[in-house]
Formats: sequence, structure tokens, C-alpha cells
Amino acid sequence: MVLSTNTGVANSNALAALFEPKSVAIVGASANPARIGGRPISYYLKAGFKGDIYPVNPKRDEIQGLKCYPEIAAIPGSVDLAILAIAATAVAGAVKACGEKGVKVIVLFSAGFAEVGEAGDAMQNEVDKIAQQYGIRILGPNCLGLYNGDNGNCPTFTSGLEGGFPRAGRVGLITQSGAYGTHLLTMSKSRRLGVTKWISTGNESDVTVAECLEYMIDSDSVDVVGCYMEGIKNPEILIRALKKARAAGKAVTIMKVGVSEVGSEAVQSHTASLTGSDASFQALIDQYGALRAYTTEQMFDILYAFSLSPRATGSKLGVLTVSGGAGVLMADVAEELALTLPAMPAETQARLSARNPLGAPRNPVDITANALNDFPLVAESLDAMCDEGGYDLLVAFFTSLIGSPVHGEKLLKVFSEGVKGQGKPFALIGQAPVEMLEKYEAEGIMVFEDPSRAVAALSALAKFNTSFNAADEDEGSLPEIGQIDLPTCKIAEAEAKALMAKTGIPVPAEDVVAGPEQAAEAAERMGFPIVLKIVSADIPHKSEAGGVALNLADADAVKAAASLMLATVKEREPTAKIDGLLVAPMIGDGVDLIVGTQRDPVMGPVVMVGLGGIYTEILKDVAVSLAPITPKRALGLIESLRGAALLKGVRGQEPVDLNAIADVVSRLSVLATQNVKGIESIEINPLRAMPNGVIALDALIIAGEQSE
Amino acid sequence: MVLSTNTGVANSNALAALFEPKSVAIVGASANPARIGGRPISYYLKAGFKGDIYPVNPKRDEIQGLKCYPEIAAIPGSVDLAILAIAATAVAGAVKACGEKGVKVIVLFSAGFAEVGEAGDAMQNEVDKIAQQYGIRILGPNCLGLYNGDNGNCPTFTSGLEGGFPRAGRVGLITQSGAYGTHLLTMSKSRRLGVTKWISTGNESDVTVAECLEYMIDSDSVDVVGCYMEGIKNPEILIRALKKARAAGKAVTIMKVGVSEVGSEAVQSHTASLTGSDASFQALIDQYGALRAYTTEQMFDILYAFSLSPRATGSKLGVLTVSGGAGVLMADVAEELALTLPAMPAETQARLSARNPLGAPRNPVDITANALNDFPLVAESLDAMCDEGGYDLLVAFFTSLIGSPVHGEKLLKVFSEGVKGQGKPFALIGQAPVEMLEKYEAEGIMVFEDPSRAVAALSALAKFNTSFNAADEDEGSLPEIGQIDLPTCKIAEAEAKALMAKTGIPVPAEDVVAGPEQAAEAAERMGFPIVLKIVSADIPHKSEAGGVALNLADADAVKAAASLMLATVKEREPTAKIDGLLVAPMIGDGVDLIVGTQRDPVMGPVVMVGLGGIYTEILKDVAVSLAPITPKRALGLIESLRGAALLKGVRGQEPVDLNAIADVVSRLSVLATQNVKGIESIEINPLRAMPNGVIALDALIIAGEQSE
Repeated sequence: MVLSTNTGVANSNALAALFEPKSVAIVGASANPARIGGRPISYYLKAGFKGDIYPVNPKRDEIQGLKCYPEIAAIPGSVDLAILAIAATAVAGAVKACGEKGVKVIVLFSAGFAEVGEAGDAMQNEVDKIAQQYGIRILGPNCLGLYNGDNGNCPTFTSGLEGGFPRAGRVGLITQSGAYGTHLLTMSKSRRLGVTKWISTGNESDVTVAECLEYMIDSDSVDVVGCYMEGIKNPEILIRALKKARAAGKAVTIMKVGVSEVGSEAVQSHTASLTGSDASFQALIDQYGALRAYTTEQMFDILYAFSLSPRATGSKLGVLTVSGGAGVLMADVAEELALTLPAMPAETQARLSARNPLGAPRNPVDITANALNDFPLVAESLDAMCDEGGYDLLVAFFTSLIGSPVHGEKLLKVFSEGVKGQGKPFALIGQAPVEMLEKYEAEGIMVFEDPSRAVAALSALAKFNTSFNAADEDEGSLPEIGQIDLPTCKIAEAEAKALMAKTGIPVPAEDVVAGPEQAAEAAERMGFPIVLKIVSADIPHKSEAGGVALNLADADAVKAAASLMLATVKEREPTAKIDGLLVAPMIGDGVDLIVGTQRDPVMGPVVMVGLGGIYTEILKDVAVSLAPITPKRALGLIESLRGAALLKGVRGQEPVDLNAIADVVSRLSVLATQNVKGIESIEINPLRAMPNGVIALDALIIAGEQSE
Repeated sequence: MVLSTNTGVANSNALAALFEPKSVAIVGASANPARIGGRPISYYLKAGFKGDIYPVNPKRDEIQGLKCYPEIAAIPGSVDLAILAIAATAVAGAVKACGEKGVKVIVLFSAGFAEVGEAGDAMQNEVDKIAQQYGIRILGPNCLGLYNGDNGNCPTFTSGLEGGFPRAGRVGLITQSGAYGTHLLTMSKSRRLGVTKWISTGNESDVTVAECLEYMIDSDSVDVVGCYMEGIKNPEILIRALKKARAAGKAVTIMKVGVSEVGSEAVQSHTASLTGSDASFQALIDQYGALRAYTTEQMFDILYAFSLSPRATGSKLGVLTVSGGAGVLMADVAEELALTLPAMPAETQARLSARNPLGAPRNPVDITANALNDFPLVAESLDAMCDEGGYDLLVAFFTSLIGSPVHGEKLLKVFSEGVKGQGKPFALIGQAPVEMLEKYEAEGIMVFEDPSRAVAALSALAKFNTSFNAADEDEGSLPEIGQIDLPTCKIAEAEAKALMAKTGIPVPAEDVVAGPEQAAEAAERMGFPIVLKIVSADIPHKSEAGGVALNLADADAVKAAASLMLATVKEREPTAKIDGLLVAPMIGDGVDLIVGTQRDPVMGPVVMVGLGGIYTEILKDVAVSLAPITPKRALGLIESLRGAALLKGVRGQEPVDLNAIADVVSRLSVLATQNVKGIESIEINPLRAMPNGVIALDALIIAGEQSE
């Protein structure tokens, strides 16, 4: 298992030369703009790049109108960025030449490295080593390069820039896969998305998706980023980038593939990256407020919505429609996606009903096809929704009317005036020619053809709002568990329980004492109620010998029971050798949970909590988070369980102590985090949760040095 | 609660005049082709309708070039279909006039009927009554009419036909909502869908979605139908239509809205139809092999796939790609949607690897961007997949290459030759100009931009294949439970249990007998093991008195225990009056389930089975089907439970008797079906399932006359 050599100290300055070079050399330059070594030059020229462009090719003096140099050393000025469009076997030498020239960053198109197996892997390592010696950053290998619309920087051979650059805008796209990245770039153009930066990271021998994300989040010209990734190499940078994004109110949507068995295998054969477990990745996404996109269109819809709309202020959706059917459909989707549809105020409803008796004024506000005969109805209804409805988000279904020669321009005016100054996300559902769509979009109005997608996009905006607000939330602090020395070998059950106790997790106490006084003292230490048992190898049936006393409520009861027990046993089993009295707390009824940590090869320790036994085994009802987590976040995890109601008291049972469970989850997560190298996994199973606390009835720790 | 007045005897002949009239009258005809009374005439003329068209308007002699009649009676020939484009208040009179004229069917555009409340409802009932008197069928009111491309029949004012009719094809669209139906029609045109029939049913005072579906399924010109509905009025016709569709290998996809609370309310305010419970509706869909579409695009993708592709033969998906990333993505989606991705045969993999060392030959077959430099690779790989891979479905990711001026035509040739004669559904992912897309589609190749949607469409084809195959499956027969007389009043627990017993469902037997011989006889009747208890009001602690014997394995044991019991009790409690011996079977450990039936206001009785207690209460782990069902189908339901593994033995427990559970579910469904009017609901909770049978430990029947 090869972990990234990336040190994680990346910051945006390190990538400045990649995105904003002053001078560029193309090693392997071609006069043919259709070839890999020709395309970037052609793109640079078309994009109006202001810096210096130096084609390098020993066979030519001039390429695409530019002076060509026989080797990189021959270039007169300094070179920030070098593109290597050459065979894999020639790369090591070229990197060395770049190093001597003082190149800051290399965009390495060449394939045939780690993605093709051991030999390629060795070659990639060699190239890395040379680059590190010279302090050169590398994008790739096996990548398609990047595009920066801000300055016309185009070190890429993607066919996605053929036929034109994306329109101006504030969207960033990051993709591990080159060919899929080209697909995304092409899609973004047909979807009128303003993509200002696009980058393909390939094998990520050095520069990773996470670093590119951090760079884009730091950039003033990007508001929203879509990432396509197969695996994540440096989650710590991803986390830092997501935190920055949340703090800055920038949206990140991530499409991560390789979840399925075959897909995950295909990732391994296809790139050199590790995928980590999907549950861990999902936990990271959830925790830091990015939105997972499960389909490409979902990702585009989120990018489209966030790049066009004002920031959402909440989750209350107002629905305006000329079709009752579409209204019902949108209400369904909204409920599914946790948006609410509060009714319009009663007086407003009464007014609208009087105005349009065939309509429905509640919400969805259905103005029916009457809108065509009585046009002011549209503006009046929209105004009422904006001014009196108190909605955070608006959606309006007007089907092909929005693009019709008769109604289109009128509707455009009504809608843009209606939402002007409201600062509310507004999605329109309908069909219109592209020129008309562009007019709506210029007013900040989104247009969708499928109502479900419109509502989903609005719900994404509401989720980002929640996430941005959560950035400032006080989560409390992590519990202090002090320094705990771990045995390095196999950890036995008793030792595991002792470790739990040191971590501050309640475990059953047991003590063997000599007589009634000591039993009472031990009981005081443990807390009541108490169980007392005779300790003697000679007495097989303790109950019949009078050697068991349950449910002792206080010290006096313990003392009395102990005296009676010693006397009774002596009478019934006069020959038995008595070794003492075992004192233990009574463990009450409750709900059993499973709490554990697991070291993810990529994400590091993750913590999970689930309902125990069959719930976990059969129903997979568990919640996962990256470790460490505060008790507050742990509580959130517990409450997210499908079966959480079980913990809150069903059928007249008392609710169990949720805070005590949360404390255990949090402490375990801290223990795992403080001992990343020493602990592979911990499992408390069961953790008995009771109305007045919890107790770890069994614990298993798998120790293990982390492979490097 | 108003149930449909529709008698359910609809058949396709009854709708022939609606879809294929020989002559048409437009009452309320307008010279303005933009008006409701003018549009249908304009459409009829454009569509080249061959029958007679009679505008009716007392104010004009000629309309849109046609002779106009002052009233319907004045029309010289017979009239099959009359469109009423007049105010609601004038409708009753017009229907009467149509009746006198011998009109067969009316398309009633007018709004202001049941959808606006009580007054409108009364008016609708009046119109219905008149129509019934004359035997006239009504489409609407509050509908947008229909379009039949086969004969140019256009009794509709939908704006969805403005700018042209849909292209020729074999798709049918049925919609309850008019405005949403227009949206669908417009979408179908931009999506190049060949829609031959489209109908909007509105309030469904008479003609329903289900009848239209049956008509379309019966039609030779339709292969696949999409329905948009808010509620279903006559499930029996829907079922009949779906059965016919399955038998004929025609696909039906249904989008049903009104699932959410607000959505369901909005349906009520918006149409006059009842929605029924969504779970019951879903059960119907599942049972009869239609596919539920949750979004409009999903519905269109299914229609698109089924109308272009050959029928699928299974669920094995072969993935060809130039992007490893896209391959991974598609593998993920395939697994999610229950398609399998078997690997290519080892020899084929070896051959392809030798041919293209940078590629991946397993499946996904990733030929990488090499495809551009080595074009024959595409055809060779595709042929290998078709000839040696044994796949049922194929998907290929070629992004914008499929439409590129350089590669597009070459790829078109390779793909169409590759799939020719294979009879396999083939989806291509990429971007291309519309003219190019049409060329692919002409070859039966689907084109998608989003890989997830492509795989979902293929998975829908695989599901239809499964469903079509299931049409011939022998499901066994329903259990005979004979005639059971129900009490009409409240049914007490004992009575409920007795009813269960009559239904053939095991309930705990109990018998009070006089002595050992009779106890043994009773035990033989009940089956072993047996519990024996003394019956006496004078003995509060039966165990201490020797009055309980558990787990008696045979008749001799029962006899011996009874004799001993009588003797012991007599000795220990000499003054007690002994009333006899209670004989009951021992009920063993097992898994508790809940089995029930519920009368859905629309669908009739539905039956459900779930894991008992908290599983049902908290995890909502239940499966639902329309009643009645055979034991075989009941078994399928039980196995579909999330927690079904619990029944199959976990942690070393013996599996319980699934067939016995299935028998109970089936019998209960038959009981509910035979007594639709008398039973509102039945609940057996718990049904204890054991390794060797089941027993209903408690039962509750809520009787109730069905409201008419």
C-alpha cells in the first residue's frame, strides 16, 4: 500500500506558478495544432496569453508563428511552467533539464507511469525524486493539464477547448480523470456554465485534487468548485480547503467514484490512487459541509445554481405554478429533500382567491392557465409570495411560456422585476431558446426543464446555507484523555477494558475483598446497586449455598448481606475454602450499542456508532465520522441513526443517557487519533446504554503498526 | 369520499371514437387559431385529418376555411367526437344536444367543475348524468384533450403542438394534468421522442388514465407508454392494462405524484381524484411490472430507451470506454442498479492487453485515448465484447468524439456495424450535434450525455425483461379458505382468533379437560410439546402446588404428568376445588412478525408483512402487496424485507419456517379480499415464526362497512 509522498504543506503560493505562470515552455512542441504538443500552443495563442511562450523542439526554428528553441536550456528568459509532451522514457531527462533551467512547475502530459504497473511506477518515482531535488512541482503524469480563464493559461491538450473556451464565470472544475474532465468541460460549455479554472490531476505524483481545491478556494475569481475524484491522497489538505470554503461561503460539490466493487477495482487498475473507504469519505464530506454529487448532472446543477443565485437564507420554498400537476410534483420533491412549503398567510390567500377564483392560493400557488388571459396575475402572485410569504427560495413553473414569442419577454420582465432586490434564489421551469435562457440567467434566474432538478438545486443551496452557518457553531471541545501507553503486541480483553477505563469510559468494576467492611468500601467506590458473590473454588452452585446477593442498594445493605452470606455459606458448605467476596455493580437493563474506531488507509481514524447486535449486523444502521469528534458532534451522529428512536424510549421504556453515549464515542475517537500508529481498530460491543449512564461490557483492540 | 362512477367495463372499443373519430364537431369554434376554440381546428388542418371537421358557432358561417354550423343539430353528417370549448355553465345543454345528435364521445375542455369545489362538483355530476343517459363517453372536464399522430386527430388546445407535431414513433403519453402534459409534449419534441398518441384526462369524470393506458397497450402503433398521474380511480383497469402490457412485451412507466403531505393536499385542491396510499400504488406497480419514474427525465429516459432499443435479454453489462474515470463511474451506477459487470474471458483479456498495453481489458474495457491514434482498436474491442463477452447490454463512453468532425462519422460506422444483428441494447455517452444524434438513433443506438442516466436507462430495459419473463411464471394458486361469516359489529380478540383459525391460520389451542385420558386426547389433537396446568380458582400459586407441567413430548408423558399433577395437588391443596386440567401446546422461541391487511380507499385490500415490534415501529421494515396474493408471491415479499436475514437464522439460530409465514400472509390476503366490505383491517401481531411453523399469538380485526 503506497501512501502519498506529498507532504501536505501545500499552499496556494506553491500552485501560483501552475495557474499563473509568467512564462511557459512547451517541450515536445508541435506545429500541428491537433497534436498533443501542438494543442497547448494553439490554445495559448487563441486565449491571448500575455506571458512568454517558448516552444521547444530541436527539429524546428519556428512553431505556430513562435520562435522555437532546440532545448529548454536555450530559452533566453526564465521559465515558470514547462509542459512535457514527450514519451515517458524521455521525461526524467527533461525534468532534470527543467530543474537546471529553474522551472517552477511541470505539467506532465505523458502516460505510461504508475497507471500501467510496476515498471511505470518505478519510472514515476524516479521522476519524482529528480523534481524534488530541484524543488519543482509536478502536475500529472498522465494528466490533461489545466485551463485558467483569468489569464489565458492553457497548458492542456484537452479537446474540451476545441470550438471555444467556456464563457466567463466563477466556477472551478477539478478532475482526476483527464478524459472525463474533457467530458465535463464540454458539458459545461453546452450548459452555459462560466468555468474560469479547470484542472486535470492525473496520477497525482505530486499536485493533488485537494491542493487544487485549496488554490481555487483561495482565488478571488472562484465562488464554487466541482471536483471529480476517484481517490483522495491527502485528506488533511482537503479538510483545510473545505474549512476555508465554508468560512468564505464558497460552495464545493464532489463527485467521488469507485464505490462499487468493480468500480473500485477499476480505479486500482486505472490510476495509482487509493480510494479509501467510501463511508469515511462520505463522513469527511458531511463533516466539512461539501455536497456529494452522485451524478454528473447533479454536479452541474449545483454549480449552475450556486454560480447564478444569491445565497439561500433558509429552507422555506414558495412554489408558483400554472400547472397544479407540476405544483404537486414539486411539493413531493421538496418534502423528499427536506425543504418546507409553508402556506401563504390567510389574508393573502383570501385576497388571491378573490382575485383568481379558479386558482389555489395556499402554496403551491397555482394561478392556472388564467395567467395567459390575465397577465398581471403573475406579477401580483409573485409579489405576494415575495413580500408576504416569507419564503427563502422560489420556484416557478411556466413551461414553454417562458420562451414563447408571445409571452416570453413579458414573463422575463415580470420575473426579473419580481425577484430584483429580494436576494432570493429563484428557479424557473420551462423551455426556451438559448438566447432567451441567457436573458433569464443574466438576471440571476435559473432555468430548468425538469421540476425535480430545479427543486434539488434549490435544496442544495439551502444545504450550503446550513453548512456555512455551521462554520461558526461552537462544537464544544474534545475530552482530555491524557497520555495512554499502549502495549505494542496483541491486546487481551482485560487489558482492553483497562485501557477503556483509562480513557474515561465506564467499564464494569470488580473487586475481591475479605469481609463485610471492605465489601461496603468497595461498593461505595463503585456506586450502587451492587452484586455480591462468594469466591470459592469449592462451591459450584453459589446460589444454593447462599453465596449470591443481588441489587444491594447501599453500604449498610452490602455489609449486612456480606455478613449473612459468610455465615450462611459456612453453615451450608462447612468444608469449602472461602477466598473472599466479589463486589461488582449491578448492570441494569438498557439498549446495547456498538462503538468503534477504524484506521482508514487514506482518511486516518474514523469513528462509528450503531445500534448493537442484529441492528448493526443485519440492518447496517451505523453512523460514521472522521475522528476525533466532540461530544456534540457525536450526539448528532447518534441521533442520525435510523433506529435512534429506540434510544429515546419506546413502549414506555425510559430513554437512555444519550450524552453518556456521545461521551464514549468522543473519547474513543480521541484515543484512536492520539494513537494512529498503534491502533488499527477498537470495538466496544456491546456498550450498554441505560437511563443513568453507559457501560462498556466488552472491548476489543486490534493493535498494529501502520504500514508506511 | 367519492369513488369513481366509472363502471370498469371500459374496453378499447369504447375509446375508439375518442382516438379514431371519423367526424369531429368543435362547439365554440373560433376563427383565431390562438384561442381555445380555434386551436384544435388549426391543428386538425395542419395534421391533415382525413375525417369531417364541423366548426359550430352561431355567429359565423365559416371558420378557418371550413363551413361553420350554428348548432350541433344543424350538422348534416353524423358526428363521432364533439369538442366542447365553451363556458362550464353552457356544458350541460351542449352535452344534451350532442346526445340528440348521436355523438359518441365528448372532449370537454371547460374548467370550473369538480376541481373548484362543491358547486362545480354538482355541475359535473349533472353533466355526467346527461352523458350517461345518452351513452356518451366524456374526456375531461378540465382537460386539454388528445393528439393521435396515426390519423391526425387533434381535439386539443395544448400549446405543446405549436411549432410542430412530435416526430413519428411508437411512444404513448398519458397525463392527468393538462399543463404538465403540455410540458411533457414539449419536452418529448426537444428530446426527439416519437410520440404517436398523447392524452390529457383532466378531472376524469368518465374516461380515466387507466382506460387510456389499456387503449394504447391494445393499439398496434404503441410499444411503450409514459403515464403522469396524481391519483388512480380504477385500479382494476390499470391492472388489466398492465397485465396486457406485460404479456405483449410493451413497457409502461408511471410517474405518480402527490406522495408528500403538501403534495397530497395540493392534489385534493387541484383535481377531483383520490390518491390512495402511495405504498399501495407502489405495490400495484411492482406487482404488474411497470416501472415507477420519480422524475420527468427518468420517465423520458425510459421511453427513449425502450422506443429505440431491442428488448434486453438479461442484466450483464459490458462497458467500453476511452476514459478510465467514466468506466469507474458507470461500474458504480451499474452495481447500484443491480446490473452485473462480468469480466471478459481470460483469453480475450490477454489478446486485448497484448494489442493495447496501456488499456484495461477486464470490463470496463478501457481502450484509453489510444482509440484516436489506433482507430481499429474501437471495432476490435467492441466486437470482442459482443462476440466473446456474453453481455446483455452495452454502454460506451466516447465523449465529444462521437460528434467530432474528425471522428464522428467513423465512430457511427463502427458502432452501427458493431451492434448490428446483435440485438443488444446499446447506449453511447457523448456529445454531438442533433443531426449526428439522429444518425445514431436511426441505427437504434441511444445517446446520453450523463453516464449515470445511460446506465439507468439500460437497467430499466433489464427490469422490463425480468418483468416480461415473469408474466409467464407459475405463481401457484391461492389457498381456499371457504366461506367465512363475519360478525358485523366490533370483533373481540377471541372471536378474531377464532376467525384466524377458520382461515387456516394456526392459533394457540387451549382445552380444559377432566382427567389424564382426555388430556392425552386433547394433546394429540394439538400436537406436541404440550403444557399442562391445573384449573382451580382456589390455587393462586400453581407451580408451588405442583399444578404446572411444561414441555410434555408425547401422549404417555401427558397422561403420566396429569395423573401425578392431580395427585400432588390433592396432597398439597386438599381443600381446593379442582375444575379440570388445561391443555395447551408449548409455544417455542422464534421471531415475531406482524402481518396485516388494510383496505385502501382506492386500491382495495392490501396485505403487509414486517418484522414485529421495534422493527416495524421504528425501522418501518414492511413489505406491501395488493391482495390477494399466492404463497409464492408472499414468500417474495418476506424475502424483500431488509431484515429478512433474521428469519434465516443469525448467530447460530435455526431458520424459521418461511413457507408457513407465506401461507399466513396469503390466507390473510384472501380473507380480506373475500370480505372487502366487511373488513377495514386485520392485524396479526405478533405472528410467532418458529423453525417448524408459525402461530398467531394475537389478532385484531376492525370490521367496517365500506362507505359508498
